[in-house]
Amino acid sequence: MSAPVKSPFALAIRVPYGHTDQMGFVYYAHYFLYFEMARTELLRAYGVPYASLEARDILLPVLEARCTYHRPARYDDRLAVEAGVGEIGPVRFRLTYTVRRDTDLLAEGYTDHACVSRRGRPQPLDPCLREVLERIRVGGNS
Amino acid sequence: MSAPVKSPFALAIRVPYGHTDQMGFVYYAHYFLYFEMARTELLRAYGVPYASLEARDILLPVLEARCTYHRPARYDDRLAVEAGVGEIGPVRFRLTYTVRRDTDLLAEGYTDHACVSRRGRPQPLDPCLREVLERIRVGGNS
Amino acid sequence: MSAPVKSPFALAIRVPYGHTDQMGFVYYAHYFLYFEMARTELLRAYGVPYASLEARDILLPVLEARCTYHRPARYDDRLAVEAGVGEIGPVRFRLTYTVRRDTDLLAEGYTDHACVSRRGRPQPLDPCLREVLERIRVGGNS
Amino acid sequence: MSAPVKSPFALAIRVPYGHTDQMGFVYYAHYFLYFEMARTELLRAYGVPYASLEARDILLPVLEARCTYHRPARYDDRLAVEAGVGEIGPVRFRLTYTVRRDTDLLAEGYTDHACVSRRGRPQPLDPCLREVLERIRVGGNS
Repeated sequence: MSAPVKSPFALAIRVPYGHTDQMGFVYYAHYFLYFEMARTELLRAYGVPYASLEARDILLPVLEARCTYHRPARYDDRLAVEAGVGEIGPVRFRLTYTVRRDTDLLAEGYTDHACVSRRGRPQPLDPCLREVLERIRVGGNS
Repeated sequence: MSAPVKSPFALAIRVPYGHTDQMGFVYYAHYFLYFEMARTELLRAYGVPYASLEARDILLPVLEARCTYHRPARYDDRLAVEAGVGEIGPVRFRLTYTVRRDTDLLAEGYTDHACVSRRGRPQPLDPCLREVLERIRVGGNS
Repeated sequence: MSAPVKSPFALAIRVPYGHTDQMGFVYYAHYFLYFEMARTELLRAYGVPYASLEARDILLPVLEARCTYHRPARYDDRLAVEAGVGEIGPVRFRLTYTVRRDTDLLAEGYTDHACVSRRGRPQPLDPCLREVLERIRVGGNS
Repeated sequence: MSAPVKSPFALAIRVPYGHTDQMGFVYYAHYFLYFEMARTELLRAYGVPYASLEARDILLPVLEARCTYHRPARYDDRLAVEAGVGEIGPVRFRLTYTVRRDTDLLAEGYTDHACVSRRGRPQPLDPCLREVLERIRVGGNS
């Protein structure tokens, strides 16, 4: 019933009742949760689980986030959320997302991240993370 | 427009759109957020802000939580959430809550808490906290 | 890595970052979202998707909800949430839940429901729904 | 303790524990809830409560949302969230937001909206709403 999803890091999400609002649609803020769930799976699929980064004192706070909403998602929809890699700068990088129901594009967006330590000190982009991001990007995912 | 609230720790909450679900009511899990917001104000009103407890390595995780739903709350309702103190045992204590819209009782519930350190070690009920809880309780709030 | 889950309606949930709080644990209110997700799958597994009930103007609002927290869940934990059927009365019924990580019981709880129409009129328990609930219950789930 | 807020539609928000994540900061998606709460107050302050729009079958779904995060917000912070009006087009308009703690700018962003009926039909921007938005905008708020 749901569209085939080829990339290893696409995430299937069943919309819970609690994510709908009285319009009958998924409340707009929850897409950012879906983005986070997808980037967790993206990083895991490429061998750098986010938890392993935090264990090395590398946090990836969000610097900027955007979502464009094309069509509403509804209760019990089975969504496919794909994450990819956008621009990679010296200290920040962009992850990109699409949310689909079957072949319909419901929403798309991005989050920009930087590396900081647990104490909040900005850090250069971790070399291991950069290597993985570039590998994902060359793979053409987004 | 909203009912007079006498107790110092009653909290006024305006229901956001994002807390409604497609039934048009506040989704049931959010009441537990409202309970938390009210207990934060209760403790602050009695001079022991929860943040000051955490600063002393006293966390108050929830051991049990219950809510009974009498009537639905809706978008933009102005709710009055009152918190009080229930039973105080040697290692755990109960906080009680009511959620009202004007004079209508919409929901009521409780949360049971214990004291633990940040590393998760159970601790006896902090004497200062116990003293405050007993003071609140005698004040007849709940 | 996660425990084998035999019942058709057990739900695997990967804890998102956004569900943790500064204690490093899943915030207590989110378990009620997990309960809802599990009951959706329970009803679907037994042939009465909740969406089909709403299409017949049968809503199942929560009358009471409780959760007991035994051990904390953490970011990226893979939880198994099982739902079952408790007492079935003339107008209300109870669904029960357990949340496990591997073989550890993290939390358990219940939700009580009644049938109402979209306009909020109480209704007797829908016969078809009752039949299914009794079938699940006899099946010995949870 | 919190910064003086002059505009009639600034909203004071006390950060609940449940909005923090294990980084110890407010989870990034919740800012969009704060934006919504602020736009509700903005519209109310100017005489067009959002609920009154929905009563006239005018919904204002979000077409696009963005937030830029400058500094983290923490548990129990008292935030001032201001909403203003940005560009007003023939069928869509932008609301803008800032989130401050005292004088520190923590985050800023916008949401773009269109008018649709409950059945999802796009509508021209409601004349009454347009008049109010222009009035707010001229007032120099944002």
